[in-house]
Amino acid sequence: MTTTPLSPTARSRINRVKERAVTERAALYAVLDAGLVCHLAYVHDGAPVVLPTGYARDGNTLYLHGSTGARSLRNAAEGAEVCVNVTLVDGVIYARSMFHHSMNYRSAVIHGQARLIVDRQAKLDALRALAEHLAPGSWGYAREPNAKELAATAVLAMDLTEAAVKIRSGPPADEDYDVEADAVWAGVLPLRQEWGAPEPCPLLRAHDEAPEHVKARVGPA
Amino acid sequence: MTTTPLSPTARSRINRVKERAVTERAALYAVLDAGLVCHLAYVHDGAPVVLPTGYARDGNTLYLHGSTGARSLRNAAEGAEVCVNVTLVDGVIYARSMFHHSMNYRSAVIHGQARLIVDRQAKLDALRALAEHLAPGSWGYAREPNAKELAATAVLAMDLTEAAVKIRSGPPADEDYDVEADAVWAGVLPLRQEWGAPEPCPLLRAHDEAPEHVKARVGPA
Repeated sequence: MTTTPLSPTARSRINRVKERAVTERAALYAVLDAGLVCHLAYVHDGAPVVLPTGYARDGNTLYLHGSTGARSLRNAAEGAEVCVNVTLVDGVIYARSMFHHSMNYRSAVIHGQARLIVDRQAKLDALRALAEHLAPGSWGYAREPNAKELAATAVLAMDLTEAAVKIRSGPPADEDYDVEADAVWAGVLPLRQEWGAPEPCPLLRAHDEAPEHVKARVGPA
Repeated sequence: MTTTPLSPTARSRINRVKERAVTERAALYAVLDAGLVCHLAYVHDGAPVVLPTGYARDGNTLYLHGSTGARSLRNAAEGAEVCVNVTLVDGVIYARSMFHHSMNYRSAVIHGQARLIVDRQAKLDALRALAEHLAPGSWGYAREPNAKELAATAVLAMDLTEAAVKIRSGPPADEDYDVEADAVWAGVLPLRQEWGAPEPCPLLRAHDEAPEHVKARVGPA
């Protein structure tokens, strides 16, 4: 785990509302670890495309997961520039003015090139990291991928080098004269994610009860 | 409100797992109305950039909201191609095999060009739609934007013409031999969003209690 500070380039530098930019690498890792899907953007025939994609972080590497048939992964695997964003919305800011209505959020943007993981063991390691992110405890419980399944799965890796984190938290940031006027209520409506009770597959015959690694996840996400 | 079916083009056509593609316009509207932020992608100096952006839908128009200083909005306003994605994750699929681990989700992708809204009344109408999406009931309660604030706000509009919706729901889709083996538990862990109790701004002097339009939102998102 590197402790090198993030070194934004011109395109990853946050140009607006600079106090929201967070340059610590730990903050980048925290946002990536808290998210579930990323948004992967690439250029296809000169136009941008953005699609939701499974991902995981392992140290300073970001893994992106997909099918070998997915155009997004094929494009990204060819060494083209990609951009990845992970955003978590934490609440809505009800300000005293419409202008200062906003959201509390944590957002990470990563720029760079992705490389296709070809080596079998490296691919298995990456798939294990992706599994731990998506469904902690499933690897070693569910059946591991066979040769055909491995071949049908594409995993890309990106270095977390060119990245920026932006976080907004806390109460509304209203104009002084609106605070002074005290004419309306203002505050934050928090938005939370929660894992519900496991819903068993209707085709199960044994295994009525979900395993511990699934049950342990129920609650705040 | 148009009832024209979605007409995917080559780039918006869903190439994989075709049964997940939903072509009804109502499904597109439902996904857009359920989301809170979109991911806006554009091309800058030949490379893709994707950033979280506030949005709203009004009929067959998508509004994108930002500051006039935001590079994403400036780029998009210049008539360049953009791509917008809204994704809602509904749960994690714990399959019998790692390969079939997946997510339940609803995702909408829109391609096209965005136009900057210049007309004052059109801009106010769009801002009202954006406010209703972000914070229903706030418009008419909080102070409306003044001339300076209006000038500092950029609103873009996109037609919902070239769009695709992809939805995955229901239990794991395992291989027959894994279902037959019945070796492990399988199912879905649902992920839900919930609005928590309003958190008042510490600078409030009167207005202890949140207004009805805020309190009424508490609960499942």
